[in-house]
Amino acid sequence: MAKRKKINLSKISTRPPEGADKEKLKEQTKKMAQEIAGLHEEMIAEGKRSLLVIFQGMDSSGKDGATKRAFRYCSPINLSAYSFKKPTDLEFKHDFLWRVHQQVPAKGSIKIFNRSHYEDILIQRVHGWISDAHARKRMAAINAFEELLQFDNNTTVLKFYMHLSEERQLKKLQERIDDPTKNWKHNDGDWEERKHWDKYRKAYEYAISYSTIPWIIAPVDSRWYRNYFITKEILKVMRKWKMVRPTIEKKK
Amino acid sequence: MAKRKKINLSKISTRPPEGADKEKLKEQTKKMAQEIAGLHEEMIAEGKRSLLVIFQGMDSSGKDGATKRAFRYCSPINLSAYSFKKPTDLEFKHDFLWRVHQQVPAKGSIKIFNRSHYEDILIQRVHGWISDAHARKRMAAINAFEELLQFDNNTTVLKFYMHLSEERQLKKLQERIDDPTKNWKHNDGDWEERKHWDKYRKAYEYAISYSTIPWIIAPVDSRWYRNYFITKEILKVMRKWKMVRPTIEKKK
Repeated sequence: MAKRKKINLSKISTRPPEGADKEKLKEQTKKMAQEIAGLHEEMIAEGKRSLLVIFQGMDSSGKDGATKRAFRYCSPINLSAYSFKKPTDLEFKHDFLWRVHQQVPAKGSIKIFNRSHYEDILIQRVHGWISDAHARKRMAAINAFEELLQFDNNTTVLKFYMHLSEERQLKKLQERIDDPTKNWKHNDGDWEERKHWDKYRKAYEYAISYSTIPWIIAPVDSRWYRNYFITKEILKVMRKWKMVRPTIEKKK
Repeated sequence: MAKRKKINLSKISTRPPEGADKEKLKEQTKKMAQEIAGLHEEMIAEGKRSLLVIFQGMDSSGKDGATKRAFRYCSPINLSAYSFKKPTDLEFKHDFLWRVHQQVPAKGSIKIFNRSHYEDILIQRVHGWISDAHARKRMAAINAFEELLQFDNNTTVLKFYMHLSEERQLKKLQERIDDPTKNWKHNDGDWEERKHWDKYRKAYEYAISYSTIPWIIAPVDSRWYRNYFITKEILKVMRKWKMVRPTIEKKK
């Protein structure tokens, strides 16, 4: 497996670029989300391609929020999101991609993965539940799997690493305790996982470096910039498709 | 993708070896099938491994018959067979392995595939529904998929090519017309596919040559020898496993 390029996440900013205009970009995000909804309708009409958007990142990195913002104007027809939790007993009795493969989008559809098959080389590796050798085999299997979706089902696989700073995570996790409307999101486990920050960063760097399909590193410390950045990247890909709605041959 | 070895099916016999003793081997087949049932129970008890048996071959090559014979003493618990037919509309909207992956065995189980993902590089190739380049990509995807089942779910993948002669197929297809109890198996399509015999043989030779997990070529012209041969090969693999039933720690 060839390494694409060595990535060092600690050298990449988690914040909006200098001088980014919050109000202007929020307005643009809205317009872009509307355009995404239109292109989604084209996808349904054409029925020839599919889109898989994967959000991976530490707890509270905004995976739910980004999903909501980018697709807020889309019809729920041929659009759905799936959140990967701890595998069930039946899922544990199968290979790690078994449950994931069942969830991939059909032609004409968009699917959003909140977490994904990457957890199986992230959390599992950080805690030593699998060996490094096993993780390497899984990485090769992931590459083959994502390529299969592309060449055999015309699926575009768009992977976002939600790049959050350690300080910002602390603030957001604390908010979940302090703000009663956010209490439901609180989970002791998140504070536990936070202790492994450096190990997670290393595991992410491995996954990003060895992926055949490249990752997009999204700076997510600011909610508004995160939404702008992710919406823009999704739209950029969809615009390139040049879709054609089928028409009826008119009788003369 | 490295070619394992060039295979020439026309040089491999479809018949029982000289001097094979029909009555003796039928008796052995029965005893071996009983042993398989015992080992299947061990699998359920241990719950750590799974077995996927794939039968591929021309129409009337005895895929159903072999399934019935080898597993006739097994409990239907943690044992099932799946016959792959023409894909449904929903299946066609996904990559070719999507419906296959859903059917793979859980730990502690045996699954039998009557036809399989190989159809997608056989019938589809013979009729020119996919290009040779696409078939090569699918072959690589199949290899990655079967390896995944092995390394990540401890699945043994046992693939039988049901090696039938053209003459013998003619006889069996004709029986389906002449014998009222077999009329239900008759299908005009089988006679159509038969016209492409040489193309199928070539497509099979490709699949067998480029598979990472080796195929077993089963001579199936004689029903009794086919059953003996396949049962023996399945048993051989299961015997190697050295399974351990979990026990309860006794209090003293």
